[in-house]
Amino acid sequence: MKTIPLMSSSDYAISLASVKAAAERINGFAHRTPVLTCHALETIATGENETPKQLFFKCENLQKVGAFKYRGALNAVKKFLQENEQTSTTFVTHSSGNHAQALSLAARDANCNAVIVMPNNAPVVKQSAVRGYGAQVLLCEPTNEAREKMANEVVKDTGARFVHPSNDPDVMSGQGTVALELLEQAKDEYGVELDAIIVPIGGAGLCSGVAMAAKCIDLTMLPTISQSLKPGIKVFAVEPTGAADAYNSFQKGELMGHTGPVNTVADGLRTTLGDNNWPIVRDFVDEILLVSDEEIVSAMKLIWERMKLVVEPSGAVATAAVLAHKLPKGINNVGIVFSGGNVDLEKLPWMSKA
Amino acid sequence: MKTIPLMSSSDYAISLASVKAAAERINGFAHRTPVLTCHALETIATGENETPKQLFFKCENLQKVGAFKYRGALNAVKKFLQENEQTSTTFVTHSSGNHAQALSLAARDANCNAVIVMPNNAPVVKQSAVRGYGAQVLLCEPTNEAREKMANEVVKDTGARFVHPSNDPDVMSGQGTVALELLEQAKDEYGVELDAIIVPIGGAGLCSGVAMAAKCIDLTMLPTISQSLKPGIKVFAVEPTGAADAYNSFQKGELMGHTGPVNTVADGLRTTLGDNNWPIVRDFVDEILLVSDEEIVSAMKLIWERMKLVVEPSGAVATAAVLAHKLPKGINNVGIVFSGGNVDLEKLPWMSKA
Repeated sequence: MKTIPLMSSSDYAISLASVKAAAERINGFAHRTPVLTCHALETIATGENETPKQLFFKCENLQKVGAFKYRGALNAVKKFLQENEQTSTTFVTHSSGNHAQALSLAARDANCNAVIVMPNNAPVVKQSAVRGYGAQVLLCEPTNEAREKMANEVVKDTGARFVHPSNDPDVMSGQGTVALELLEQAKDEYGVELDAIIVPIGGAGLCSGVAMAAKCIDLTMLPTISQSLKPGIKVFAVEPTGAADAYNSFQKGELMGHTGPVNTVADGLRTTLGDNNWPIVRDFVDEILLVSDEEIVSAMKLIWERMKLVVEPSGAVATAAVLAHKLPKGINNVGIVFSGGNVDLEKLPWMSKA
Repeated sequence: MKTIPLMSSSDYAISLASVKAAAERINGFAHRTPVLTCHALETIATGENETPKQLFFKCENLQKVGAFKYRGALNAVKKFLQENEQTSTTFVTHSSGNHAQALSLAARDANCNAVIVMPNNAPVVKQSAVRGYGAQVLLCEPTNEAREKMANEVVKDTGARFVHPSNDPDVMSGQGTVALELLEQAKDEYGVELDAIIVPIGGAGLCSGVAMAAKCIDLTMLPTISQSLKPGIKVFAVEPTGAADAYNSFQKGELMGHTGPVNTVADGLRTTLGDNNWPIVRDFVDEILLVSDEEIVSAMKLIWERMKLVVEPSGAVATAAVLAHKLPKGINNVGIVFSGGNVDLEKLPWMSKA
């Protein structure tokens, strides 16, 4: 197990306590998504002469808005209202992905407003989806500067609370609840203590939340630990080779952005880590694994075929790494997060190859 | 509620007792598939000024071999071995669909052999799938006569037990276990007593098993009844307009085959009812509803998009009827069976329209 520096609450943006508080906050609003298994995928994942792998798939593609993002957005919304003793306010973000829909629905579920800043080249279907959840869409030039500027203006003009898609501590804590449930469900429903949890890494909101929760539950120094959970759990993050900023940062030991053009089918993983995510990834993640687009699409199709579940490319990267035997030896009971299932059914990636 | 003639065990090929025996036999081998809900589909299914519909989807697409067919095949295999005090024998059927894979796997799981008679124009991928489960494939001319003749020859030569895909009583009883679980899960997991169960109808193995189980649980005259289950449950069967033999039989009051060319995207529902299925459908089903291929494909795509579940066209027909508001008024808590999820991901029906 990776040696984790003795933590103090000030070292990191989130803690096990903040993840547990998030779990209480979103309980009954976010779905406790099922954990499913698949014998066919286990057979493929098991190498020659290896102990048979047991895979436990946490189906966040079945979460509200079709992605884990609802957890973090809802936690941010509810916590803000609680702390400010408000019953309604406006939340703003910049995103054209799953976080946009997640924040829109979370705000609506809390009787609040949401303003979503999107690049003016965002697909109309994504704009409509967000408007369908009652949010206001503001279009900007398709640059990082333009979207940040516009979001800042909304904050300044309306007093809205800005909720970053991955670097916001409340978002990170919310995403960490995936790990709490997965560990519990593997134990309660299957009688298994996981050797590892594998997650996709993009902005690392999910990865840092899951890593913090899984490792802290595991550290015997903490008084809140459940002694029944197996010690020494590992956390692996998986990234597409075409957007390997986290991998490069991890190798170099310092936070880096993309060093070349970004090119991957996993559209949810094209972003970069923020300053709140990076220290947790650096200290709590055991290894970052790379997968090719071909491996991602192949895993995605296998999941559809064998598990009858719709997962998006970003949601299939963790499975891709496991099916391609990229885990170190001795990791047999594996929790895998299907992070989302939002795909354009008219344009499936294995079709475009024909 | 439809008036059901006072039953004696000799009137019908199966009974509630035979379905319950099947449930015990397959327990621990077949998956107890999850029952899921979807707010978006409920909204579409609810007509103007109607009580909001609650839909409970029994996910047999997540069953072994991707379809409910495993239940019936396994029940037939296990019951035969029990009754004949045998530990191994050969099972034979004619099918190029889900029943072929189901019988192959059920036989293998019981350390038996399976011989599957298929038309010589069956897709190679389906032949390979069956061989992948360890079964022997025999190819015949693509006619009913040829396949029956060849299956009979296997029986004569080897003493194999023939297991018809839908008209075999043990198969029908096995499929009926879907209803036992669905009723229980709706009550235990959601606190809901269903007003109706909606199933696809093709050969009517599923439909007759479900109808017998659901209606008999409901009849207060039977001593085994759980009084906690709501009386008066209705059973609806849904059939594609392009293969409406069950609908026509039901209207006319006598068993009929197809009266014209069969043409539907729902390939699992192109078959006709047998003499064991028909009396149960006639006496226990409340109504047979028709849906167009367009309604089927639209429902199928919505299920993929909103529920992130892969269902095949035949598996979407019950949902299609509900989304198109074809249920009578006052049916609000509805159990829907997703019967299967085996599709060719290279050829999706909404693509071929482009």
